[in-house]
Amino acid sequence: MQTTRVTPSRLAKRAHYDAATIHPILDEALFCTVSYVLDGQPMAIPTAFARKDDKLYIHGSVGSHFIRSIEQGAPVCISVMLADGLVLAKSAFHHSVNYRSVVIFATAEKVTDEAERIEVLALITDHLIPGRWDDLRPTTDSEMRKTTVLSFSLAEASAKVRTGGPNDDPEDEDLPTWAGVIPLQTKRLTPVPAANSLATTLPDYLA
Amino acid sequence: MQTTRVTPSRLAKRAHYDAATIHPILDEALFCTVSYVLDGQPMAIPTAFARKDDKLYIHGSVGSHFIRSIEQGAPVCISVMLADGLVLAKSAFHHSVNYRSVVIFATAEKVTDEAERIEVLALITDHLIPGRWDDLRPTTDSEMRKTTVLSFSLAEASAKVRTGGPNDDPEDEDLPTWAGVIPLQTKRLTPVPAANSLATTLPDYLA
Repeated sequence: MQTTRVTPSRLAKRAHYDAATIHPILDEALFCTVSYVLDGQPMAIPTAFARKDDKLYIHGSVGSHFIRSIEQGAPVCISVMLADGLVLAKSAFHHSVNYRSVVIFATAEKVTDEAERIEVLALITDHLIPGRWDDLRPTTDSEMRKTTVLSFSLAEASAKVRTGGPNDDPEDEDLPTWAGVIPLQTKRLTPVPAANSLATTLPDYLA
Repeated sequence: MQTTRVTPSRLAKRAHYDAATIHPILDEALFCTVSYVLDGQPMAIPTAFARKDDKLYIHGSVGSHFIRSIEQGAPVCISVMLADGLVLAKSAFHHSVNYRSVVIFATAEKVTDEAERIEVLALITDHLIPGRWDDLRPTTDSEMRKTTVLSFSLAEASAKVRTGGPNDDPEDEDLPTWAGVIPLQTKRLTPVPAANSLATTLPDYLA
């Protein structure tokens, strides 16, 4: 019988600065955490986002305290983490996590062109639910007036990636303790219709 | 045929300050994001943690730049988010997310008592992998010397919780667009043994 096994990590926590590593992490993650500073105090807000080319976009309510705190260009740190697995070593000390993370240092630029604003809202909607935008009625002027759209450059983005099994100390190798990886996966379960949903079947893009 | 349906949210984004809401969110989440300020620049680090009573604990390498930046009591913001579902409304504007989040404003206190430090490491290990600690060899003095353990008070913690279906505008109610919730769930998949794992069966706490 063949058993798949994980081999020790060779890539532990090395930083990556290339789009080929950074973009797929941003495209797979559903949410980011935006950190900023208010009167010397760090603040952090989880929010939806989307990436296009070398920009990351978020949106929010015009009146939101968070949006108003960063829309003028205060420095932010945007972080994204995909947890891929728990790494069990033979010592507590070498337990670890397999993950793919991105950290971005940037300042917000307000997107003001109306066509671009709508394009970004479509991008964010379809990032969370691919295919959704084309199934929705057009946005109204009132909705657009209530919405702020911000963009952030990915010029100062870096990724960290850990894969593989535990890196145990040589003197622990012969311990009988089970070692390996518990993979983690975020799944989308079967959609549950709302009380006001008149559709009797799921649209193709949700099935 | 009966179909389960989600009803509109009645709890949208209200803040909660009670342990009965905050503690279960912290106990279910595997990772938090610690935000801090370095020379005016916000920084954010995802990390493992655990809660006991009204304290949250993290650990890290004595030499870590992150740990050294906050161990002297600089203000931090610790955020945790559990994404429970994507909320699909009949307009893009009312799309939302069902989530449970906690934000904590605090400053680090270094845990210095050796027995308490080991207790916290057990807590963090068992938070990620319940039952693991008792299966591991004791920590060594050298490992403990390389490890910093920090505690944070939950006195300034608050939670936000959104549940339920979309809150559509009355004029959108009759649109035929499918509306509802796509539940999200993080699952642990079957553990994969490491190349150096001598155990032939999974321990009970992993099965």
